[in-house]
Formats: sequence, C-alpha cells, structure tokens
Amino acid sequence: MDTIYSDGYHIYFNNVVDELIRFIKNGGYSRFFVLTDENTSEHCLPVIKEQLDELGNYDVIEINAGEESKNIDFCIGIWRMLVDFEADRKALMVNLGGGVVTDMGGFAASTYKRGIDFVQVPTTLLSQVDASVGGKTGIDVEGIKNIIGTFTQPKAVFIDVAFLQTLPERQILSGLAEMLKHGLILDAEYWQKLKDSDLKQPSAELIHHSVVLKNKVVLEDPKEKNIRKSLNFGHTIGHAVETWSLTHDSNPLTHGEAIALGMICEGYLAHKKSGLKAEELEEIVSVIDSLYPRYSFKHSIYEELYSIMLKDKKNFDGKVNCTLLSVIGQFSIDNVCTKEELFEALDYYVNR
Amino acid sequence: MDTIYSDGYHIYFNNVVDELIRFIKNGGYSRFFVLTDENTSEHCLPVIKEQLDELGNYDVIEINAGEESKNIDFCIGIWRMLVDFEADRKALMVNLGGGVVTDMGGFAASTYKRGIDFVQVPTTLLSQVDASVGGKTGIDVEGIKNIIGTFTQPKAVFIDVAFLQTLPERQILSGLAEMLKHGLILDAEYWQKLKDSDLKQPSAELIHHSVVLKNKVVLEDPKEKNIRKSLNFGHTIGHAVETWSLTHDSNPLTHGEAIALGMICEGYLAHKKSGLKAEELEEIVSVIDSLYPRYSFKHSIYEELYSIMLKDKKNFDGKVNCTLLSVIGQFSIDNVCTKEELFEALDYYVNR
Repeated sequence: MDTIYSDGYHIYFNNVVDELIRFIKNGGYSRFFVLTDENTSEHCLPVIKEQLDELGNYDVIEINAGEESKNIDFCIGIWRMLVDFEADRKALMVNLGGGVVTDMGGFAASTYKRGIDFVQVPTTLLSQVDASVGGKTGIDVEGIKNIIGTFTQPKAVFIDVAFLQTLPERQILSGLAEMLKHGLILDAEYWQKLKDSDLKQPSAELIHHSVVLKNKVVLEDPKEKNIRKSLNFGHTIGHAVETWSLTHDSNPLTHGEAIALGMICEGYLAHKKSGLKAEELEEIVSVIDSLYPRYSFKHSIYEELYSIMLKDKKNFDGKVNCTLLSVIGQFSIDNVCTKEELFEALDYYVNR
Repeated sequence: MDTIYSDGYHIYFNNVVDELIRFIKNGGYSRFFVLTDENTSEHCLPVIKEQLDELGNYDVIEINAGEESKNIDFCIGIWRMLVDFEADRKALMVNLGGGVVTDMGGFAASTYKRGIDFVQVPTTLLSQVDASVGGKTGIDVEGIKNIIGTFTQPKAVFIDVAFLQTLPERQILSGLAEMLKHGLILDAEYWQKLKDSDLKQPSAELIHHSVVLKNKVVLEDPKEKNIRKSLNFGHTIGHAVETWSLTHDSNPLTHGEAIALGMICEGYLAHKKSGLKAEELEEIVSVIDSLYPRYSFKHSIYEELYSIMLKDKKNFDGKVNCTLLSVIGQFSIDNVCTKEELFEALDYYVNR
C-alpha cells in the first residue's frame, strides 16, 4: 500500500514500526514522550517497546481509557507531566492510542510551550480512518465533544493494522461506520466493495482506501469551509445522540454506533430533502441494521438532543446545518434542517 | 501616526474607537463578546459602551484583574461562558484589557471551536507595546508563565493611548521597561530619545515607535526561530524573578520591574560575554535605577531561580540561553550562560 502524502506530512502503512523508529531517530528531538491509555500500554506499547528502549531518553504518560478522559483535567495532567519532565520545545510527543489519545495528545502538544511536534500512532480502526488524519485536535468541555481544540497537523502518522487484532469487535464496528460514511459521501464503488466484504474484519486495503478518501477531502479544505463538511454526514444527529448517551447511559454508545444511527436519520432527511431515492435509503438502512444494534430512546429526549445540536461547532445563528446525500457516493452540504424535520428523522429511526 | 501593518492585520493608532466599531460592524460576525477585567470594566468599557450598545448582540465576560487570574481555571470559565452564550464559529472576541486579558482572551478564542476571531484592545502600556503585537497567546500553568498557548494572530489591534490616563504610575513603568528594551536591542537613537523624555508619561509617538520596532521583529520571525529571540533580552533572569515573586511576595513585582532587574543582570552578562562596554552598562544601570525601586532578594533563592530558568520555553537541553547586547542598539542571541555566570549576574544586581 502506498504511503499517503498529506498536508506537509506522510501517512505510513508499511513497516510502520521501523518507520516510526527511523522518524524519531532522525528528527533531532531532545527527547520524546509516548502518550498511552491503559489499553495501549498493555497491548500496543509492548510491540514497540524494545525498539523504543534502544532510542533511550523517553517517558511514558498514561491516561485512563475512554471518552470521559478526554477532558481538561487529563489535559492539564499531561501538561504538568511535560513540565515536570522538563520537556523543551524540541521534544516530541508520540500519541499511541485511539481517538482520545490522538485528539487530546495532539491538543496538549499543540499548546505546550505554544506547540511541540507530535506524531499519531492510531491503534483503533476509528482513529486510523478518522481521528488521525486531518489535523483536528481537541478535548471535551462541559460534555461537549471537541469544543476546545486547534487545527494542527502532526509531523507523521503511522497506521499499523496489526494493532487491530487485539481490538474487540464492537470497536471495529465503531471505526467501520466512518468507512461506510466515506463510501456513502464520496465513492459509490467503494460502498459497493464494503457491502461485499466481511465487515467485521475489514482488510488493510479497505482501511487504506478510507484514509485516501478522507485525506483528499481535508487536503482540499483543511479548515472546513466547504467540502470538508461532507465528512459531517451522520454527525449532526449522531453527535447529539452520542453526547446524550455519554452522560445518561451506563454503557454508552460508541462513536460509530451513534454515527450509524445518525446516518439512518440523515439518510432519511436526504431522501426527504436532497434527492436520495427510497431504495438507496433502504439499502443504507439495511446494511447498518445488519451490523449495529438498535438503540432505543424516547420522544421526551428530542428537545435535549436538539439543544445539543444547536451547540455543535458546525451550526450558526441558531440553525442546524446537515450534510446529506443526493445519491449514494455524492454529498450535499449546508442543508438547513428545521426542528420539525430533525424530530421526524428521529421518529423514522425509532419507528421503522 | 501611521497605521501599522502586521502579519495579516492592522494596528490602529488614530480614532481607534471608531475603527473598532467599524471593524465589528463590517466583519459579518454573528455576535461579539467583550472580555474585560474589573479594572477595564470600570475605566475602559464605559468609554466605548455607548457605541457598542448601538451595535447590539454582545455580552461582557469579566475576569479578575491580576496575573494570578491568567490560569486554566479562568480560561475554562471563559470557554464555559462562550458555550452558555452559544457562541458559534462566527463569533468575535474583543479583548479589552492588559496582558492578562489579551493573552488569555487570545488563547481562549484561538482554541474555542478550534478558533474564533479575536481583536486586541490593549489598555495598559505594557500590553500596548508588548503583549498585543506578535500573535502570542498564553496562560500560566503551575505558576509557569505562558507555558500553555498558541501562535495565533488577532484580526486587528486598536491602541488608544487615552486609556493610559487612568493607569497608575507603577503600571506605566511596567510597560516602559519593554520600551527601554526595544531601544537597547534595536535602536540606539530611540534609546537616546527615551532617556531625554519624561518617562513617567511617555508620548504617543514614543509608544508608536516601540510598536513599529516590535512589529518589524515579529514579522521577520513570527515563530521565534532567530531574531525574535532579541525580544528576550532581560527576560531570562527577569521572568524567573517575576515567577518567584508572584508566588512569594504579597505585593509581587510587575512584569516591567522584573524585566528592568533582568536587564541589569543580563547587561552585566553582556559586558562579560558579548562586548558591551563598561560605560554602556553603567548608562543602562543608571537609567533603570532612576526609574525602578531596588528589589531585594537573598542568595538562598538563586538555586530556585535557576530551576525556573531551566523550565523556560526558550531553553533546551538543560542549558540556559540568553539574549545579550554587543553595543547599545544591537543584540546578540543564543549566548549559553552557565549557572555560575547567572549567579554572578544576580550578585552584580544585589551588590552594586
């Protein structure tokens, strides 16, 4: 698989551990820090530890696993560790983990001493096909996802599909939702290919193609002025349900489960508003239903979901903007959806 | 006085309130927020309030005055207010205050929803000649000044010397230290002019010239790779003493008082290491002594000061780097100073 060139940095797919070691060795860094969570400390760090040890002069900073760690308190913890370890401006941060580690590690690095270098080593399917590409860093504040962050590019991304072998199936499915989205918004042929594959074990080639697709979009529109908004398909309603679930459910939805739900709702809106045919909507719903459990929620939470949508970064002037589809493989941005339409879309999910 | 053009934005000196109002009106913002502290709420906001009210759709966020407010807790407070007021990505932040307000307001804006626009309306001499120009934003963590921040340019800077009329003399002198520094590192003629002026009430022309000088430096080297380091003269020792004083004195040193002290120490190092003549050092010391009170501290704190210097953003590899002078009006960067030399410089200040 080809190495992908992004906005000033490379995304490596082959011999990634060797490439990572070479990168650190030749980067002229004063020292480096590996940010992990409990899971990647146990399952991923050991894979590279021997080679890291040969480089010397590094420390590991571990955070708790899970989206609820992606907050300012953990971020302050990382900053403090960097201060205590006397990290200077020539230090490097290696973010080894899922989206929480790559997003928060990227934010901590991009603001420590007004910015030190960082690289992403995403270890979940979700972070490989989504979080680690595109230069968005972020943390949650007041339970609002990624409300605080920066646009800062990593110096390199290292994607090793071998890390996925220890990942629970539910986490694979979480990343898969973003892959399905890439097909739906950008590439009908890829969507077809995905449908014909064993989606509980997506191949390295499929993962690589998702990164190629996402990278094309963010290269063309890094600050989300226009076509990058395509990536928000399923995310307006999906993010709101995810946020709600995070604060209300003992076993909250994964990101991908929420986005899958969001794609059904926004697929419905696409059918109502932007020309998606009924049979295409049915096809989308049937693929998603075959992979993801049904989430049950009541009409009484709709108002709260709507108020979360209004606080979303993507929305302005008290209006909710959705990215929809015109056909499978083509997106349509900036569709203003009324409260009534959004509620109807939620009803569609619940009652179908 | 000429409007100054900086890195993508203007620094206005004339009819500044009108310019500010025009900027907000024509910027296409969804709404705006004015960040103030207790002092600027009382003394500065009333000056522009009537005109702001005519624009409508804005809120005031007030923080406590003083460097001890420039921390992550207040910053979180600002983020929360922006969330609660439902500020979207097209909102504008107007930072009306001294360096604490402009630095922290800039940081909060540059990270809220991955960055909203902000403008600086510096109301102290220090922030007019220093903090508001150059795109550095920041907050203090663990008492280390500006350890967390970003490089983000404001959309405009509005410098109104009328705001200085309500400023206590001690605050004028705090800003003056940076003006003296500008002369010492860059412009011997300007240094001469400053010496011949009533420095307790510096003229608008002198202030303007300081901004011209600083702007030239930051335009040439925005990320502090080389010549921007010139601005660190007096700051290696000055920052350490300032940090120490902030956590130990009930009435801590102002920034300028600490920098004035630092310029004496680093002037001494310049004499020892980079060619500054004895009579030039004496001239610098005599000007500073005529303006600033002597600060007394004991040899027993030197080690602690040294450990603060090592944590400074500007230092690498456990070495302390100083910007010195070769003659008055010319700087010399990247002078590694040993612990012994730094202690000798502190002795020079204490024993002269």
